[in-house]
Amino acid sequence: MSAQQVINFTRGVPATESFPLEEMMAASQRAIEKYGTTILQYGKSYGFVPLREWLAEWQGVTVEQVLTANGSLQVIEFLSYHFLQPGDVVFTELPSYDRTLTLLHRHKAKIVGIPLEPDGPNIEALEAALSQHTPKFFYTIPDFQNPAGATCSPEKRQKLVDLADKHGFWLLEDAPYRPLRYQGEEQPSLFNLNPERTLHMLSFSKLVGPGPRIGMLYGPADLLQKVAKIAEDTYITPSLLSQGIVYEFCRAGHLPGQIEKLKALYGPRLQACLAALDKHLPEAPATRPDGGFFLSVTLPEGITTAQVMAQAKNHNLNLASGQAFFPDGGGERFLRLPYCALTPTEIDEGISRLATVVQEVQ
Amino acid sequence: MSAQQVINFTRGVPATESFPLEEMMAASQRAIEKYGTTILQYGKSYGFVPLREWLAEWQGVTVEQVLTANGSLQVIEFLSYHFLQPGDVVFTELPSYDRTLTLLHRHKAKIVGIPLEPDGPNIEALEAALSQHTPKFFYTIPDFQNPAGATCSPEKRQKLVDLADKHGFWLLEDAPYRPLRYQGEEQPSLFNLNPERTLHMLSFSKLVGPGPRIGMLYGPADLLQKVAKIAEDTYITPSLLSQGIVYEFCRAGHLPGQIEKLKALYGPRLQACLAALDKHLPEAPATRPDGGFFLSVTLPEGITTAQVMAQAKNHNLNLASGQAFFPDGGGERFLRLPYCALTPTEIDEGISRLATVVQEVQ
Repeated sequence: MSAQQVINFTRGVPATESFPLEEMMAASQRAIEKYGTTILQYGKSYGFVPLREWLAEWQGVTVEQVLTANGSLQVIEFLSYHFLQPGDVVFTELPSYDRTLTLLHRHKAKIVGIPLEPDGPNIEALEAALSQHTPKFFYTIPDFQNPAGATCSPEKRQKLVDLADKHGFWLLEDAPYRPLRYQGEEQPSLFNLNPERTLHMLSFSKLVGPGPRIGMLYGPADLLQKVAKIAEDTYITPSLLSQGIVYEFCRAGHLPGQIEKLKALYGPRLQACLAALDKHLPEAPATRPDGGFFLSVTLPEGITTAQVMAQAKNHNLNLASGQAFFPDGGGERFLRLPYCALTPTEIDEGISRLATVVQEVQ
Repeated sequence: MSAQQVINFTRGVPATESFPLEEMMAASQRAIEKYGTTILQYGKSYGFVPLREWLAEWQGVTVEQVLTANGSLQVIEFLSYHFLQPGDVVFTELPSYDRTLTLLHRHKAKIVGIPLEPDGPNIEALEAALSQHTPKFFYTIPDFQNPAGATCSPEKRQKLVDLADKHGFWLLEDAPYRPLRYQGEEQPSLFNLNPERTLHMLSFSKLVGPGPRIGMLYGPADLLQKVAKIAEDTYITPSLLSQGIVYEFCRAGHLPGQIEKLKALYGPRLQACLAALDKHLPEAPATRPDGGFFLSVTLPEGITTAQVMAQAKNHNLNLASGQAFFPDGGGERFLRLPYCALTPTEIDEGISRLATVVQEVQ
């Protein structure tokens, strides 16, 4: 490939070739034919009932324990309205998903970051923070974390749910990447371990596509009732047209095959990214996830992501600042690499350019 | 029809038979075929560009002056985030749309209600309120107002934009019913009269259907840029799948015919409602709108909407409380009648039952 071709390691977007266009076309026909007068009308703020029934069965809960919204970020907004008054404490991993941090700041939360290790949050730091504060919730991405690529170990998962019980706080488990495990063994979710203390979020964005905007919240029925009222006050009803179409896609049995297709597409891209880092940039330690959309590297000492970002532009390489993931500063040498929307060739070329840039700024 | 059949004069929902199912099925095929990889992906928070281009041309503005969102209530939420700090003053008509009032309360606005007359806001009351406060914006529904059914006269429209200029406040013109005029002459919008001081909101909810959730905000490009950032922070991207489908519906030229179909369906329902009120309940003064979804009646003195609501249930007649439309109390005798989703026969029967109930509680 040519040096003029721009390579973006910026945001975690699905690969264009991942979208199930034929199946979605057929699903849209059936959805409007079968449910047109329902999905073009107003409805309950919980979302389209047949989709919620399907989602309930998928995760083994009752339909009252599932709420859908226009994307899962909007769910975090609703939960912020429900839980937070200005100054209330929320824990997040450090680093954490920048868009969640922006929303928490909008709601004037006091954010306490718990340092994230390759096997999950640092438990000593969490216990120390708990001796100072009881958070309204701990926002965590246990599987293939965004932005770091870390996955929480079984031991730490158990510890998290025990601490949530002991101190009386909610775990907000954001799990959009969880179904995308390319290797290794699935761990129990926090919701599996302690459904009384966990609010579990899933999304179709990384499985079918972000365009329909469908995020899901699983949790206790009484809490979801309050979230549903906030949702109703915000937009009356989520996009039922989208929900009807995605429901028909799922009902026809396409989701398992779609997930297998994604694993076959993205797994080799993760391997290409790790191989390219080993080859071109062995001096920068990288997380080695078993799934998801991201890995992260720590740049060699003395080199900042900001320097590298600026210089990378001269090589037609776009990178994202690490600092948005660190609520209280830090992250100067942190670099997130979203690899899913790039081919193995583009990934190798991108990492090679990155290594050149690191040389240049040294 | 039987006395057992329930009649709902509750919320302003479109008639089930109004939805253009065939055209939407065809539009969904074309949209996914032509734009599948765009409308299943993330995109700009302003919405799907071809739809925005179409909407810009429809209203004679540039594409930078149009933002789409998941329903127009969500636009009001974004504008509340943009304009309001707790305690800031907002003017609304009195009565006003209850869901807007709920959102303004959520943002801790101080709401000042300007009494609404059959020809628009009482200008003396508005001037008196302006001598006390300069609002961040005046939320107004000039055409076929929800809940009252009033339409602002040309003279009052001019007065509103002059006062907005003089005192330096925004007019937030919510116009979802404006395209649904069944008789009489169209008035200029506030946005036509003074685009520098007006934010104009439209929606597909009453034209194609609420299920796709597409609301539109027209306004100055620099202000929309700020709103787009708030939208991005809330949900990244609106539902592009819905937007692509509704765009294809519009691009194929179906909207004018659909609006004519709605006028032919709803116009006779409005006439049936007015005729039934003249026949069964002449003692209750009613607004006599030329379009839209609602009219309102003032119950005879000594009778409250709450009494009538409670007693109506015994006649299988569901009514809505008037008080949600009055932010500071009042509205005890106010009754909104949304007639669009009822047939003329149901309307006549419903008003007849209402008259019986009024007799009973007298």
